[in-house]
Parts: sequence; C-alpha cells; structure tokens
Amino acid sequence: MIRNSTSDIEDLIALMAKLPGLGPRSARRAVLHLIRKRALLLTPLADVMTEVAATARECLNCGNIGTREICPLCTDPERANGELCVVEDVADLWAMERALVFKGRYHVLGGTLSALDAVGPEDLRIPRLVDRVATEGVSEVILALNATIDGQTTAHYIADQLQGQVRLTSLAQGVPIGGELDYLDDGTISAALRARKEI
Amino acid sequence: MIRNSTSDIEDLIALMAKLPGLGPRSARRAVLHLIRKRALLLTPLADVMTEVAATARECLNCGNIGTREICPLCTDPERANGELCVVEDVADLWAMERALVFKGRYHVLGGTLSALDAVGPEDLRIPRLVDRVATEGVSEVILALNATIDGQTTAHYIADQLQGQVRLTSLAQGVPIGGELDYLDDGTISAALRARKEI
Repeated sequence: MIRNSTSDIEDLIALMAKLPGLGPRSARRAVLHLIRKRALLLTPLADVMTEVAATARECLNCGNIGTREICPLCTDPERANGELCVVEDVADLWAMERALVFKGRYHVLGGTLSALDAVGPEDLRIPRLVDRVATEGVSEVILALNATIDGQTTAHYIADQLQGQVRLTSLAQGVPIGGELDYLDDGTISAALRARKEI
Repeated sequence: MIRNSTSDIEDLIALMAKLPGLGPRSARRAVLHLIRKRALLLTPLADVMTEVAATARECLNCGNIGTREICPLCTDPERANGELCVVEDVADLWAMERALVFKGRYHVLGGTLSALDAVGPEDLRIPRLVDRVATEGVSEVILALNATIDGQTTAHYIADQLQGQVRLTSLAQGVPIGGELDYLDDGTISAALRARKEI
C-alpha cells in the first residue's frame, strides 16, 4: 500500500483499518496521530492493549467482560436484589450501566437466536440463564433485548422457558427522550400511541 | 464511566476515544471488537504499537516517518532524478505515493505558515528545503500544498525563497476524476474553465 515505507507502520495501519468505524483512510490518519502523540497516546495505548489482551475474560456466571473469573457485578452483594436483566451483549450491559438506574444483576446472552445464522439456544448463554433463575433467588427477569426481529424472537423463546417460574418484564417502548415525531419510524409511533398514559 | 468494570478496559476505551474518527461510543464498540478478536487483532495490534512506539522517527532529511535516520525514499538512488515534491505532512506524501506516478523525492514541511497560529518559516522544514535545493542537485520543485489559504501562502513564500534557483511548479487545479460539476465549488469550476484544454 505504502511503497518504501516501513512495514511496521504499514502493519499498524492495516490492523487499525480492521476496527469498526475506521477504514483505510481514517486508519492512516489515526496512525499519524498516534506517532505524533507517541508519549501521550501511542505508548500508553500499546501498554494497556497488552494488559487487556493478557487479562480480559468473560465472567463465567453472567458473560460480562472483566479480568476475573466472576465479575464484580456478580459478586457485589448489594446487587443481589432478585432482579436479573437479560441483554444481548456486553455493549448493552454497558449502556444499561451508564443509565445509572438498574441496581440488579445482568445476564449477557452473547447474541440472539437466528435461524439464518444457525444460532440456537445452546449457542447462547440461555441454559445458564435457566440455571441462574432456579438457583440465585431471582424474582424478576427483565428482557432488555433489542427491538429487532431476532431480539424479539429470542425474548419470546426465553419467556417460554421461564414462564411460571419468575416475573417476566421487558423495557417499555415509546418515543425516546428528546425524540422528534417527524423523525421516528411508524412502528415506534404506533407502539407509543398504544401504550399512551394519562397525564 | 463504566462503573464496576475493570479499569484497564476503561482506560483502553478512554485512550481509543482520543483517536481522530472515534468518539466514546465507537471507542467502546472498537474495544469490544478487539477483546472478541483477541488473537487475530488485539494482541498483534498491541505488539505492533509497541514496536512503532519504540522505532518510529522522522527522517532527518525529508521529514517522512519511518524507522531509520534517513528514510528509504531519501536513500533510494533511483529517486535522485532532480524532482523534489514539497508536501505539508506525511499523509500527503502517502497520498502522492498511492497515486504511483511521482518517481522523485519528497520534502515534508510539517505544516503551513499561519499568522493566526504563529507558525513561521523556522517552525517548518523550510530552511532544510532551501539547503536541499542548493546541495542535492534538484532541478524542479513541485509545490504540492493543499489548495487552502495557508497552503497557498506557504507555497508563495517558498516560491519567493527559491526563485531563480530551480524550476518551480504546482499541481494542476481542475475537475477531479469522476467529479460532478453540480457538486463542485465555484472556485474549482472557474479554475478548471480558466485552465481549459483543446481536445
């Protein structure tokens, strides 16, 4: 790609270009930025990547990513309040945590059921979820799956598995805070209208 | 930011978010991707970053980034054809190299003159350029600076310094290949019209 340049820098550009959100052009820009900010950015980033590559692992209980066998969310006794929030992946767990409103524990499925991609219940962390509900004193399972077809299929499947054992809830659907009606899809508007509330 | 998560992963997200083209959300996504592709992406990236952090340096002659005191472009005897292409920064050198058309050597200024940002000739690699023209058997200096006000100011300044010593040229201005007139700015259209050619 860059003739006569050094292969380490080329390799770095090629690897950076594989990150989601970066392409070849922005990878080149990022690498130049990294080299210019060597002490402030490149060296610390190399060090912390080495550290994370050596230590990051999935929590054996819930599937969250951390550095221990069992993650801090699963071992925190204050979070054993009987509420278990089921999410598709760790990014969703992080999004819930940023909202600062949920105080229970999580269960990360690691994806959704998908006939097209041949993902079945045994490929996700669903058997472990059924175990946890039976053994961890769970009183409510909140299905916080994405409002996509695969997400909703998965939610229905899990609800079938747990029916009668526990209170099952899902996130409310409606107009997002700050959302403008004009920019919302029809499905959201009709869901918000059906779930309308007295003021 | 991510409460109860491990601080290495938080640190990695915070550092990734400082890259141009990534924000907090895309940095989180990139970090999850890195952790999922640990062997294929995270470990190699950490290794090559460590290597580049240790070895990357500016060529003492032209300002290109490489791993040697003098870069391969400056030591390649086939490139000593008397043509010297002056660019603002290394990204521009890379862009010229990708076009596979220029066979001479480069000189990277490291920026443009700017009254606003108090960048004077001594802050750029302009004295070194004047030296090189006098000592390297340069017959033509191609000013490939950006078509911005600062870029053109810098080109005029350099042209003044080198006037009479060497042939001075600049890149042609006109309609980009594949460009649609409807999307071009007025300045480009009038430049292309003034420089029109017989067919």
